Amino acid sequence: MSEIGLVGLAVMGQNLALNIAEKGFSISVWNRTAQRVRDTLARAQAEGDLPVTGFEDLAGFVASLERPRRIILLVKAGAPVDATIEALFPLLEPGDVLIDGGNEWFPNTERRAKKAEEMGIRYIGMGVSGGEEGARHGPSMMPGGSRDAYELIAPVLEKVAAQVGGPCVTYIGPGGSGNYVKMVHNGIEYGDMQLIAEAYDVLRIAGGLSNDRLAEVFADWNAGELESFLIEITARIFRKRDGDGYLVDAILDKTGMKGTGRWTVQEAAEKSVPAATIAAALDGRYLSGLKNERVRASRILTGPQASAAADPDLVDDVRNALYAAKICSYAQGMNLIRAASDEYGWNLELGSIARIWKGGCIIRAAFLDRIKDAFDADPKLKSLLVDPGFAAELSARQASWRKIVGLAVSNGIAVPGLSGSLAYFDAYRRERLPANLLQAQRDLFGAHTFERVDRQGSFHADWDELADGV
Amino acid sequence: MSEIGLVGLAVMGQNLALNIAEKGFSISVWNRTAQRVRDTLARAQAEGDLPVTGFEDLAGFVASLERPRRIILLVKAGAPVDATIEALFPLLEPGDVLIDGGNEWFPNTERRAKKAEEMGIRYIGMGVSGGEEGARHGPSMMPGGSRDAYELIAPVLEKVAAQVGGPCVTYIGPGGSGNYVKMVHNGIEYGDMQLIAEAYDVLRIAGGLSNDRLAEVFADWNAGELESFLIEITARIFRKRDGDGYLVDAILDKTGMKGTGRWTVQEAAEKSVPAATIAAALDGRYLSGLKNERVRASRILTGPQASAAADPDLVDDVRNALYAAKICSYAQGMNLIRAASDEYGWNLELGSIARIWKGGCIIRAAFLDRIKDAFDADPKLKSLLVDPGFAAELSARQASWRKIVGLAVSNGIAVPGLSGSLAYFDAYRRERLPANLLQAQRDLFGAHTFERVDRQGSFHADWDELADGV
Repeated sequence: MSEIGLVGLAVMGQNLALNIAEKGFSISVWNRTAQRVRDTLARAQAEGDLPVTGFEDLAGFVASLERPRRIILLVKAGAPVDATIEALFPLLEPGDVLIDGGNEWFPNTERRAKKAEEMGIRYIGMGVSGGEEGARHGPSMMPGGSRDAYELIAPVLEKVAAQVGGPCVTYIGPGGSGNYVKMVHNGIEYGDMQLIAEAYDVLRIAGGLSNDRLAEVFADWNAGELESFLIEITARIFRKRDGDGYLVDAILDKTGMKGTGRWTVQEAAEKSVPAATIAAALDGRYLSGLKNERVRASRILTGPQASAAADPDLVDDVRNALYAAKICSYAQGMNLIRAASDEYGWNLELGSIARIWKGGCIIRAAFLDRIKDAFDADPKLKSLLVDPGFAAELSARQASWRKIVGLAVSNGIAVPGLSGSLAYFDAYRRERLPANLLQAQRDLFGAHTFERVDRQGSFHADWDELADGV
Repeated sequence: MSEIGLVGLAVMGQNLALNIAEKGFSISVWNRTAQRVRDTLARAQAEGDLPVTGFEDLAGFVASLERPRRIILLVKAGAPVDATIEALFPLLEPGDVLIDGGNEWFPNTERRAKKAEEMGIRYIGMGVSGGEEGARHGPSMMPGGSRDAYELIAPVLEKVAAQVGGPCVTYIGPGGSGNYVKMVHNGIEYGDMQLIAEAYDVLRIAGGLSNDRLAEVFADWNAGELESFLIEITARIFRKRDGDGYLVDAILDKTGMKGTGRWTVQEAAEKSVPAATIAAALDGRYLSGLKNERVRASRILTGPQASAAADPDLVDDVRNALYAAKICSYAQGMNLIRAASDEYGWNLELGSIARIWKGGCIIRAAFLDRIKDAFDADPKLKSLLVDPGFAAELSARQASWRKIVGLAVSNGIAVPGLSGSLAYFDAYRRERLPANLLQAQRDLFGAHTFERVDRQGSFHADWDELADGV
């Protein structure tokens, strides 16, 4: 009998199965196409005679598991997951646990969990971050759903997870909260990547930095407050040669995407959470995709002649701008998680979520300790921007930030993430925004009424009458 | 027998019914609560003995209509529309026409149209813009659905619509296209309002303009390229007194919203259409809603001391920036409409849509002629930004635009719409964006592969091997 089962043996599934087996848990595996089962067994043999048992029939696979059965699914999100659980349900018994490890749209998890519960089966939607490498050697995992079920699977997950100040896994919360947190993680990842790309663009165009120099700069940044996986790999990327040149220069500037960044932006709109940085990152990907249109537009739409100027502070200013914008981006993401938590009654702990992102996942960073500390100090913190530590950092960096955005704007370099974050910061710290004018307009053309600064109530003005008053 | 019927007698419905009657069409009206029927009849009497017949029973209402029956619904979107059409269906006959005039989510219209068709009933989802005033004296109307049904209702709609170079109504296209176009209209309206608010903010803070001076400036702008309903009413708003002061200064800076702006941003994400300006406008409303948080944050987060400086060009520069950003916003909106048209096979005519926004609706503006001309000249125009006329205008205005965004950034004035539009412009006109770096990152951590600039195909690099190569 195996302690745990895993269904879906594409690379992610294979790697997670081998990771689990390597941690000493006996595991049964099954896949719709049998070749992948054989591939997995061959790898289990080659990578240390790991305790993996393969099955080509689903019933045999299920029968091989200790009860209550614990089955992880790593199957393509959407219809394939539905098909898989439909096939599994008749073979399971009350008390068994299903863990869907895909990037699933959270209401799908909640729908399936409800159906599973009717049969006494416990269901978990678990975000898994870290890609293939993470799956094999230690991912960050965000399981949400039945807490009972989590307790049953926790001993496995805690050993399999990345270990950075403890295992990078914790019970997230009920319902689809695990998927939701993973979705926002990915949105934050989009933001980080966009901001890094903008920093690269400014350093290259306004600073004239070579790839070798960029590699040094990013390696240097990775030794400081920006220390993170993405900054580290960016330094490595700039070093990679390609014939006589550098590979980064040969790569087409057209970015692909999966659905989670899009969902984050749609959910931010849904939950009324401003998320300018993440939205700019999504738009950045869409604009990158319009390669042919851009080539044509570049011949029609002129701009300022950008020129590299010697500025000994440029690199530090860009670093400061990047860091400040990153705080805004994470503030947006954490606020979105909280908005969902409040709306659905998930009772999520933002500090714990920051902690489990410390290892295994793409956004792993020293910076996350600071976020954890901020929420530990004040679990009801309205925004990372007003945490005393972050507020002080923003204050210290904003001159650089304004300088870099101004430089980009005057040189025609698109910095939607840096400038969108700055506008977010400047709007958030404004006691009085010009929205009074909007309310006046809405009252004038739609009788939507307005509130006043000096007394309570809803008011409607007779704009026609008084418009002629002057 | 009446020529047409109308169900739903809140102010919009009353006004549209009176408008229809005033144009010489006999109309029957019905409302769930009878008092509104009596109110409408009283108004019909008072406003010129108009040919309105009221009913307190739905069957009597339906029986009073010439066949095929034409019934306009002005009922709250969502469940109330479903309830209303469920009540109507048994009373109708094949060939009858239902026209839903609410701000409905377009898939709802398509769902209802399908059900109606099964009974031989023709269904139209029609966006109506212009608020109560427009409904009474001439709205802009965006009917989508059955073309046969449109032909039956066109003689009425064409007389009832605002008349600006022809009636502000046309057959939009099949399915939910009428609702979709109205949704984007509202998103564009959000963008316009946000940009005007930012212009106000810059002129007030960086320019030190008084409300009287602001009224002059906006009235002056309304005599030029920015001529539009929103600019006109903004001038009027600044004149409106409130005791010893001005009303605009007494209005709370907290903006309400309905769902259509939100939907526009969500749909832009769904259709992979960058829409930075409209997204900034939505975020602007959300940030305005966080009044208490902002008041607190304003005491924690410092910024530069903004100071009004004498600059004789400021007003013109702000006007140029506003106009340039407005072009970007409309480009985003039109591209979203086209993306939906392509995806759903609606075959929408963007020039005609611009034309029917010329009168009746909130975004009515001289500028829309230019958009119509651009799409008439090239129906396949990829973006308004590359229309020769708009490209020249953007070119002429971009120095001002960069100056104003730079001024706002250095003074700590949030201009997410102006700066987001500029970043959109600067990204769109870039042959090469820094997205090559993103693709390198995605290939490194997720084996997502990349394309190359110098040859066809998908590539994956061994980043580990070569990272050590230097």
